[in-house]
Amino acid sequence: MTTHPTRRLIAAVGALALLAGAAAADDDMDYYMSVFEPLPALPPIPADNSLTAAKVELGKMLFFEPRLSASGVISCATCHNPALGWADRLPRGTGHEGQIGLRNTPTVLNSGFLPNQFWDGREPDLEGQALGPIQAPDEMAMDLEEALERIAEFDIYIEHFTRAFPEDETPISAENVAYALASFQRTLNTPNSPFDRFLRGDQGAMTEQQVRGMMAFADNGCVACHQGPALTDGLFHRFELPGPTDLGRFVVTGEEHDRYAFRTPTLRNVAVTYPYFHNGSIDTLHDAVNLMGEQMLGQEFDDDTLNDIVAFLHALTGEQPVVNIPALP
Amino acid sequence: MTTHPTRRLIAAVGALALLAGAAAADDDMDYYMSVFEPLPALPPIPADNSLTAAKVELGKMLFFEPRLSASGVISCATCHNPALGWADRLPRGTGHEGQIGLRNTPTVLNSGFLPNQFWDGREPDLEGQALGPIQAPDEMAMDLEEALERIAEFDIYIEHFTRAFPEDETPISAENVAYALASFQRTLNTPNSPFDRFLRGDQGAMTEQQVRGMMAFADNGCVACHQGPALTDGLFHRFELPGPTDLGRFVVTGEEHDRYAFRTPTLRNVAVTYPYFHNGSIDTLHDAVNLMGEQMLGQEFDDDTLNDIVAFLHALTGEQPVVNIPALP
Repeated sequence: MTTHPTRRLIAAVGALALLAGAAAADDDMDYYMSVFEPLPALPPIPADNSLTAAKVELGKMLFFEPRLSASGVISCATCHNPALGWADRLPRGTGHEGQIGLRNTPTVLNSGFLPNQFWDGREPDLEGQALGPIQAPDEMAMDLEEALERIAEFDIYIEHFTRAFPEDETPISAENVAYALASFQRTLNTPNSPFDRFLRGDQGAMTEQQVRGMMAFADNGCVACHQGPALTDGLFHRFELPGPTDLGRFVVTGEEHDRYAFRTPTLRNVAVTYPYFHNGSIDTLHDAVNLMGEQMLGQEFDDDTLNDIVAFLHALTGEQPVVNIPALP
Repeated sequence: MTTHPTRRLIAAVGALALLAGAAAADDDMDYYMSVFEPLPALPPIPADNSLTAAKVELGKMLFFEPRLSASGVISCATCHNPALGWADRLPRGTGHEGQIGLRNTPTVLNSGFLPNQFWDGREPDLEGQALGPIQAPDEMAMDLEEALERIAEFDIYIEHFTRAFPEDETPISAENVAYALASFQRTLNTPNSPFDRFLRGDQGAMTEQQVRGMMAFADNGCVACHQGPALTDGLFHRFELPGPTDLGRFVVTGEEHDRYAFRTPTLRNVAVTYPYFHNGSIDTLHDAVNLMGEQMLGQEFDDDTLNDIVAFLHALTGEQPVVNIPALP
């Protein structure tokens, strides 16, 4: 381990020190508190897509709308399944006619906090992301014009689009589908995880083991890439995984250093969004943390450290949004 | 039209008579009230599967559980979609790897009130129905043993099955999956439709046109087959439809008179469970009523009668169950 000596000391006696409330430990805890950021209630809202109740409500309908797929049975919620951490808990996404895609389905939860979208970061924001899976041949396989035609058949959708985009001459448009979906997704956040409550001053919110894990996460350098409120730097990294791979970020940039590189995923709700990595080849948090230690940090975590970090990752599961299924026309 | 003279008179002046509160009209209304039955709060509960909160909660989890399908992305809720009247609004069900099945997906709503299950009535109850779609090669295409193995991997399911079936030595069994799913489905009822409220004495619950439609529905004989709280006799009838057909009830009985015969569907929530008939070949209520008039009653409804009956059918849409999506392990 390449831990800073002070940090290592803290990791060893952290819980005890916490209980004792020693001044030195307080100082160190101040340091950890400064390393991390709790999740704000809402992600940044883009200037050209203000967050309104009308857009969120419409976006929710569209999110559950299987008519946006060629088959008529696949909606965004099929793979971003609210019952399964807003992902699918499969190694790689399964879409139109049972085709299995290249990559693991990322959770929608807190996706508004991500600096960019998709495993290869090819879209800067949720507006850019929203129309991708609808049209992808191995996902919803839908022609966008046909999707708009299907929606425009229903008076209820005409009303909802007009209410959400009152100044548009043609409210039902691909752009507005994206705006509405992005707006709904910006409301799917998981505040008040034990980690957030701890950062906001509730010292009992995490277990002692989770606090040790948080320290180890910082001390061992995990936080270098998993930083910020969503615990991702939004940057691209390359490492070896079992199972299939693809060119990753290289497809977007053509840069050699981006070959096989994938964006750091958020760790928020990581305990409920298994399996892991871009090809979903790793089933458990233990194996995932172990692999990251070896490949990204060049070190083998001892069992205690590994268990502590995994315990900490469980503290990143927040309150899941409660969503009533909308009645569609 | 082959309407009874008294009934025909009522159909013509019904609304007026209602308002005037004439004694004769009251008598006639008593007749109509005696023809129909409001929906009880719960369907009959079988003696060997008592309805308990623990079973309902487990059944809800299983209903939303895509791991019960071979692909891992199809759950009961995929085709019996709560957003779409607990059906799929497609002509025929779309299942494993995009295969399109033989028949239209029936709604789960009020299915506990049906005298038998499936378009061909091959199962007597929801317990018998529940495991069919899981194993059907063109639906969820799942091996039942494998489904049980997948579920048994999760402590949360072990807990839920044990709580729901405390006296069983092996709580996780195919039989108990069926019991739990059936229990959940028995809670998916739609009380308090305008029709039910009217039958319970709220004379303003249906519009005048809907009241006329109810009378026409009785007077013209629709109620002969669409009777009882679910508005189905549970019997099998044969008529000609456009689009593909199949042997229907004949497959179950081998009786010649059952060839191409299908069970009378419930009319509850019929306005939100289009398209219609066993092959989903009819898109609108107008066309469906028209076709029934011609084929089952041997008469062509005039436009007013047709519109009145369709208006009445809209009064059969009840309060939809509000279901929060469960968090699955």
